[in-house]
Amino acid sequence: MGRHKLLLEKMARSCQVRNLLLRQALAECLGTLVLVMFGCGAVAQQVLSDGSHGMFLTVNFAFGFAAILGILVCGQVSGGHLNPAVTFSLCLLGRERWRKFPMYFLFQTIGAFFGAGIIFGMYFDALTDRPGSFNVTGPAATAGIFATYPGEHLTLLNGFFDQMIGTAALIVCILAIVDPYNNPIPQGLEAFTVGFVVLVIGLSMGFNSGYAVNPARDFGPRLFTAMAGWGSEVFTVRGGWFLVPIVAPFIGSTIGVVIYQLMVGFHTEGEARDQKIAIEESVRLTNVTTNEKTKDNAKEMH
Amino acid sequence: MGRHKLLLEKMARSCQVRNLLLRQALAECLGTLVLVMFGCGAVAQQVLSDGSHGMFLTVNFAFGFAAILGILVCGQVSGGHLNPAVTFSLCLLGRERWRKFPMYFLFQTIGAFFGAGIIFGMYFDALTDRPGSFNVTGPAATAGIFATYPGEHLTLLNGFFDQMIGTAALIVCILAIVDPYNNPIPQGLEAFTVGFVVLVIGLSMGFNSGYAVNPARDFGPRLFTAMAGWGSEVFTVRGGWFLVPIVAPFIGSTIGVVIYQLMVGFHTEGEARDQKIAIEESVRLTNVTTNEKTKDNAKEMH
Amino acid sequence: MGRHKLLLEKMARSCQVRNLLLRQALAECLGTLVLVMFGCGAVAQQVLSDGSHGMFLTVNFAFGFAAILGILVCGQVSGGHLNPAVTFSLCLLGRERWRKFPMYFLFQTIGAFFGAGIIFGMYFDALTDRPGSFNVTGPAATAGIFATYPGEHLTLLNGFFDQMIGTAALIVCILAIVDPYNNPIPQGLEAFTVGFVVLVIGLSMGFNSGYAVNPARDFGPRLFTAMAGWGSEVFTVRGGWFLVPIVAPFIGSTIGVVIYQLMVGFHTEGEARDQKIAIEESVRLTNVTTNEKTKDNAKEMH
Amino acid sequence: MGRHKLLLEKMARSCQVRNLLLRQALAECLGTLVLVMFGCGAVAQQVLSDGSHGMFLTVNFAFGFAAILGILVCGQVSGGHLNPAVTFSLCLLGRERWRKFPMYFLFQTIGAFFGAGIIFGMYFDALTDRPGSFNVTGPAATAGIFATYPGEHLTLLNGFFDQMIGTAALIVCILAIVDPYNNPIPQGLEAFTVGFVVLVIGLSMGFNSGYAVNPARDFGPRLFTAMAGWGSEVFTVRGGWFLVPIVAPFIGSTIGVVIYQLMVGFHTEGEARDQKIAIEESVRLTNVTTNEKTKDNAKEMH
Repeated sequence: MGRHKLLLEKMARSCQVRNLLLRQALAECLGTLVLVMFGCGAVAQQVLSDGSHGMFLTVNFAFGFAAILGILVCGQVSGGHLNPAVTFSLCLLGRERWRKFPMYFLFQTIGAFFGAGIIFGMYFDALTDRPGSFNVTGPAATAGIFATYPGEHLTLLNGFFDQMIGTAALIVCILAIVDPYNNPIPQGLEAFTVGFVVLVIGLSMGFNSGYAVNPARDFGPRLFTAMAGWGSEVFTVRGGWFLVPIVAPFIGSTIGVVIYQLMVGFHTEGEARDQKIAIEESVRLTNVTTNEKTKDNAKEMH
Repeated sequence: MGRHKLLLEKMARSCQVRNLLLRQALAECLGTLVLVMFGCGAVAQQVLSDGSHGMFLTVNFAFGFAAILGILVCGQVSGGHLNPAVTFSLCLLGRERWRKFPMYFLFQTIGAFFGAGIIFGMYFDALTDRPGSFNVTGPAATAGIFATYPGEHLTLLNGFFDQMIGTAALIVCILAIVDPYNNPIPQGLEAFTVGFVVLVIGLSMGFNSGYAVNPARDFGPRLFTAMAGWGSEVFTVRGGWFLVPIVAPFIGSTIGVVIYQLMVGFHTEGEARDQKIAIEESVRLTNVTTNEKTKDNAKEMH
Repeated sequence: MGRHKLLLEKMARSCQVRNLLLRQALAECLGTLVLVMFGCGAVAQQVLSDGSHGMFLTVNFAFGFAAILGILVCGQVSGGHLNPAVTFSLCLLGRERWRKFPMYFLFQTIGAFFGAGIIFGMYFDALTDRPGSFNVTGPAATAGIFATYPGEHLTLLNGFFDQMIGTAALIVCILAIVDPYNNPIPQGLEAFTVGFVVLVIGLSMGFNSGYAVNPARDFGPRLFTAMAGWGSEVFTVRGGWFLVPIVAPFIGSTIGVVIYQLMVGFHTEGEARDQKIAIEESVRLTNVTTNEKTKDNAKEMH
Repeated sequence: MGRHKLLLEKMARSCQVRNLLLRQALAECLGTLVLVMFGCGAVAQQVLSDGSHGMFLTVNFAFGFAAILGILVCGQVSGGHLNPAVTFSLCLLGRERWRKFPMYFLFQTIGAFFGAGIIFGMYFDALTDRPGSFNVTGPAATAGIFATYPGEHLTLLNGFFDQMIGTAALIVCILAIVDPYNNPIPQGLEAFTVGFVVLVIGLSMGFNSGYAVNPARDFGPRLFTAMAGWGSEVFTVRGGWFLVPIVAPFIGSTIGVVIYQLMVGFHTEGEARDQKIAIEESVRLTNVTTNEKTKDNAKEMH
């Protein structure tokens, strides 16, 4: 036992990363890996079992719970964003520094890439067992396991609106959940609540194009599929659709920030500020009065 | 960063609403928007995908979780009613002022209206893609995505009873959840519990007419559909059905208040009052005794 | 507002029940009503919609969440048993007084009776709309909405074992949840955990005969159906099956109590008792020592 | 009441086990029994009802909630591992002693054995009612109710990888949940979070071979089936598949420990250690300064 503990401590010391930003980026990477591994795993299970071991509801549950677990894995270290659009909106509000944004974006994408890779390995037999696997389009297409593709009925414009609104809804709910002046969610349960947001977005906004609402979750696995056998078609299909889940979420997160702040945030923050000012004012007044009294006392003494 | 923060603060000050009632109404508006957006979005997803991306269970889950998120978005500011029937029953019990009622009703309906509008925009391609969309009745009808319509088997009388009982059940559970003398739900989890109530009402009382149990959630989206292309038929169909989910919930909420108070509420409140009186009594007696002792002491001193 | 409040307070005083046992029984009655209303409502929704608005999973969810809400409605007043078998096992363990048992049993059954009645009224049109409603057996039977009936494959003996094991599993889990020496479930979340027990029993033990595991939940609605049009066949069918969900749960709850106590309960309680004795012992020893020291000091002084 | 209480206390004393390890092993046994009883019960319900009373999703829910309840039943006494792979990884990290491992493994397997036995008894009629029951392979096979068998498409190699990755994912999430430096999950909710991990693994990693990820959960019930009528084929089928869910989870748990420690654990622990060292250092420095001052003072005094 003694030697075991010493060995563990030695390993811990030699592997410890002391740079805070790198440590946070590593944690985001693992968190996003967990999100994509469980989420895309559920899509794989549904698609490859032809519905016997999954349905759209199980995919929604899986992404919701995967978000919970991804946040729990890295939340205390890095904030548990798992999504560049979330990082972006917190930077917009001045709650995170802008220099975190590219680093988080990169490592979230790397995590999503490897998450897709794990699922590829896990379901390799089931994938190769199917005729016409490695198709990007058509009835036997399996590229949709990893990245999102628009439904037949969807135009690029409506798809852009879809991703924008989905991300805006996500951001409004997340801002309400983490607003210190708004909601008293017991500490440690924010992860669960954010997971429920992801679940409900899937239940109600998933039909158009599979609710990516997350540039890293979509681009990382798409890059993986391009390299793993599906080829460059994953980027060219449907007129460059792949850009939509990268660009639209950032616009959506800006809209979400503006709506939440205009409808709720500015007022609760303002009230808190007003109260603070009122207290400071009364303290100042008390001091003035005290000073004047002291002066009066001083005069009287003369 | 400095300039960014200054800009944010300047915006915050200029947008801050200082009227408390207006602020609360805005928050209710956003909360109800979230409820209807996610809830009706799930119905849209089920209807427009012909069941491949949804079923009645996913609609129930979506409305339940949408209620949770709607309450979380506005709960701390406005109480998170999201439903005029809830506001009504709290006014009945003297816990909210009656002048809040019309204001909340109006803004909840506005929020529901815009929530429906967002879903209309999000699924515009999918809606227009279907033959015979914008029908209020018939197999291809899509009006049911936004407002509720009674099943074929339902008479107006049974429908009225259905909405009444559904709302009464909702109110009994909500009163139990927020009763300070009854249940020690950890602070911040009331939203989740209310969401579960909405979920279970959908699971067990949703077959007759789709469990509106909320005048704003039903009337706002119905008004939207009337304006967006479904026409005035949404009001005239089935002998003026649209009045049922507006009128019946208020009667139901009155019944719910009476049942909860008679079976549980009056007794727990009464016990708390009895204890308070007993304490005051004993304090008074102690004072009397003390006074008499003081008098005795005074006498002795003379 | 002033008059409104006065009126409310006057009503509260005149309706207040001061007898504790009666108050608890009333609360149990409302709680069991909520349980049966939501639970049987979900069965009704599934059966009457021929599966379009429900499936076995939704029934399981409904009973689970109905148990949560039933407990929340009455938990703080009466303990939230909702089930004579739970009351029975707590009496067995000496945690409740035996005289509570018949009173709780009666009012739980009354609550279940009225819960079934509400669902009957709510789905009256849907019931009468079906050919061959009010059948107890056969493919169009609807008696199973309210009370439980055994599957075709089930013998009375296996059915008895099924109800026994189901109740034993329920009791083991409930004892673990409420064991003060075992689990630190945050206060107020016991209701949720018990609801999950009911849910999981439905998911894994519901195929044989519909997992009543509760004499009141089964007998109350059965009595209602006998009176509401299904006739005495509800008691005579399958060789007096109705006795099984009344008798077996009590035997099952005894088994559950014994298993939990032998495997976990006696040891955790014993450890707590040992620690208490150890502390008392050390206090006694200290006193003895102090006394002896005092004696020594006293001797020295002489 | 008095005699009842005395009797209970007498029984408690005579049945109390005072050996800590045995007590913990008994608790693990009951916890794993609960896990397997509810989990395999859900598989039985799905298989024996031919899908009318269950589907893959209900099995996932059942295993998730069964894990929650199993942990609640024994968590405070034994830690609630329910899985030799979990015990193994905690031993690897030096958080549990190695001598616990064989004892826990044995009693977890015994619990799983009896859990399978209870389900066998409960569904005995339904099992014997089917033609070709007690088959290990083929369309009417029922051996899969108790132990896991690989899908048709799966090679042994991919199956090994599947069990390895599944267990690694489980361990990464569990380590994040119980990491004192990482996540502030409210005390008592760890069980729920671990249950959600089991649920999501089922939703996304269950298609290949039914996600055992637990040597005891798989071997105990397999042994039971061998003895209860399915015969030795349960061990020989598919080239000794039964070894995969016994061996792979231990390798997977090692991988999980390494990944979590490298990406998150070492850094959070290291930070905590660095802070501790910094505090000790400053205390030491203060002491040195104080000592020197004292010396100076002493010099001055001479």
